[in-house]
Amino acid sequence: MNWSPGAESLSVVLTAIESLATLAFALSGLVAAARKRLDAVGVCVVAGLTAFGGGTLRDVLLDRRPFFWVEHAAWLWVLLALTIGALAFMRTRHLSPTLRAAQWPDAVGLGLFTANGTLIALDQGLPAIVAVLMGMITAVFGGVLRDIVCNDIPSAFSDHRPYAVCAFFGGWVLVGLWTLGAPEWASVLASVGVTIGLRAWAMTSGFILPQWRAGDD
Amino acid sequence: MNWSPGAESLSVVLTAIESLATLAFALSGLVAAARKRLDAVGVCVVAGLTAFGGGTLRDVLLDRRPFFWVEHAAWLWVLLALTIGALAFMRTRHLSPTLRAAQWPDAVGLGLFTANGTLIALDQGLPAIVAVLMGMITAVFGGVLRDIVCNDIPSAFSDHRPYAVCAFFGGWVLVGLWTLGAPEWASVLASVGVTIGLRAWAMTSGFILPQWRAGDD
Amino acid sequence: MNWSPGAESLSVVLTAIESLATLAFALSGLVAAARKRLDAVGVCVVAGLTAFGGGTLRDVLLDRRPFFWVEHAAWLWVLLALTIGALAFMRTRHLSPTLRAAQWPDAVGLGLFTANGTLIALDQGLPAIVAVLMGMITAVFGGVLRDIVCNDIPSAFSDHRPYAVCAFFGGWVLVGLWTLGAPEWASVLASVGVTIGLRAWAMTSGFILPQWRAGDD
Repeated sequence: MNWSPGAESLSVVLTAIESLATLAFALSGLVAAARKRLDAVGVCVVAGLTAFGGGTLRDVLLDRRPFFWVEHAAWLWVLLALTIGALAFMRTRHLSPTLRAAQWPDAVGLGLFTANGTLIALDQGLPAIVAVLMGMITAVFGGVLRDIVCNDIPSAFSDHRPYAVCAFFGGWVLVGLWTLGAPEWASVLASVGVTIGLRAWAMTSGFILPQWRAGDD
Repeated sequence: MNWSPGAESLSVVLTAIESLATLAFALSGLVAAARKRLDAVGVCVVAGLTAFGGGTLRDVLLDRRPFFWVEHAAWLWVLLALTIGALAFMRTRHLSPTLRAAQWPDAVGLGLFTANGTLIALDQGLPAIVAVLMGMITAVFGGVLRDIVCNDIPSAFSDHRPYAVCAFFGGWVLVGLWTLGAPEWASVLASVGVTIGLRAWAMTSGFILPQWRAGDD
Repeated sequence: MNWSPGAESLSVVLTAIESLATLAFALSGLVAAARKRLDAVGVCVVAGLTAFGGGTLRDVLLDRRPFFWVEHAAWLWVLLALTIGALAFMRTRHLSPTLRAAQWPDAVGLGLFTANGTLIALDQGLPAIVAVLMGMITAVFGGVLRDIVCNDIPSAFSDHRPYAVCAFFGGWVLVGLWTLGAPEWASVLASVGVTIGLRAWAMTSGFILPQWRAGDD
């Protein structure tokens, strides 16, 4: 396959990844918000924060403009339609959205956003550890905002299952392949695959992160 | 009335609106914070976050500098004086500030900040939906920050009364009139009026936002 | 002592201060996080937010780039090593980290970050009250983020002990000496000393901030 690297192709790849990840996280946010007794506005906001929060924070930190949801403003309409559609659908059928159902689109979003954020930071010439951190922020911070608004301790920091750690390793895969001169699409694909694979393993196995054996309050 | 549009007059209109809205939100934040057992520093910070939070987030997102409270630094003194004055006043008289009392200045601030944020975004040439979103963020985010710091689920997303929705419709009124070429002052006035009117109706009627009929945890 | 003021020496002073303050706050965040039942990722994130959160928010507000942790990316490795080291250390010995132990490095960080943030804002030519506010944000906001992520009301706003107030006075000391033309190192030293001294006095004395005598909910 011919791959002519360049600013335009990079931009197309990034937009495609970010679109997919946004959709995955919006779905994950919708299902998660449906379990909280938020009103319709709250559900829409939580879905939006989950979908756009990580990428927007990354862009604020990297001083990038325009934001994804400004350049592709149609996504705001998609989010609105998704919320109204899901609301109508849920009111006709008495569905009990489970946390488990939200985990799979969430894992896909995690992988895509990790690669996306890491790639953008590498492209700006930032140090490797900062690029990996940007990937993690892009991937994890949407869910952190969701949990803060829902008045929970962010599950990414407290449920003892590897989540941000998967993004950490997935980011290093991208940094490593990029440094070795691998083609962009292969690096991205490997990074997304490793992150999603690790997360899938974390969800299905019983692996528990090490924890502080601290005294009680 | 003669109205000569231009950058200067727009700037004057925006500053006047933002000053009024800041005062309204600072009052609303003070009354709300007085109900929490925060100390004097906490009350001042919560009043300040409520007053400046939404506009500051809008400016960070739009990459505008200087912030309102940097260009008009006197407002920081006003906020400090307001807090100390209210503290002294409350200690001499045993007032029980009610949530209801905070709702009216809050509704005024909601209307003014919606028009302010939407106008600024339109002036930057952003898409209509993004402009409306910026108006909503300017108007709603101060209260969201207040609730997050006070460790509550933001009432804007969970009390089932139209709040952000009023800003949404008020923002579209401004976008519509602006697109139709109406004079600025008329567009702003109509937008502010619609937002405050909708919010007043929401507060006095028993209207409830649709909610998710989701299963329990 | 010869002191040749200039952009370079200012930059060296600022970097040295920010390094020390970052280390102090990272330690304080580690000890505080060890008391929460967060997993290893959460502990690392909370330590990082406490250490870098205030300075990063200051830089976002002042539109400064690169961030401290981008320019000095090695600090991210230090943070990671600190977390892993502390984790291993805590697992071998059953230590009960007390809040009291975290308060002393925290006080040092408070003093250093206050001077650092105020100095940077003065150097940008901002008004005095804004400079003091920037010093307070740099010093206090890391801990606020830590408490928000841990789902507590920020202790800086609710524990009725002077904390942000110490930064407030320490900031004014720097502004005053700077305005009077005192050498930079003396202004910084006095500001750091006043802030830490006030905080030490607040921690050891029983002084209580005035509080709202508000009605119950």
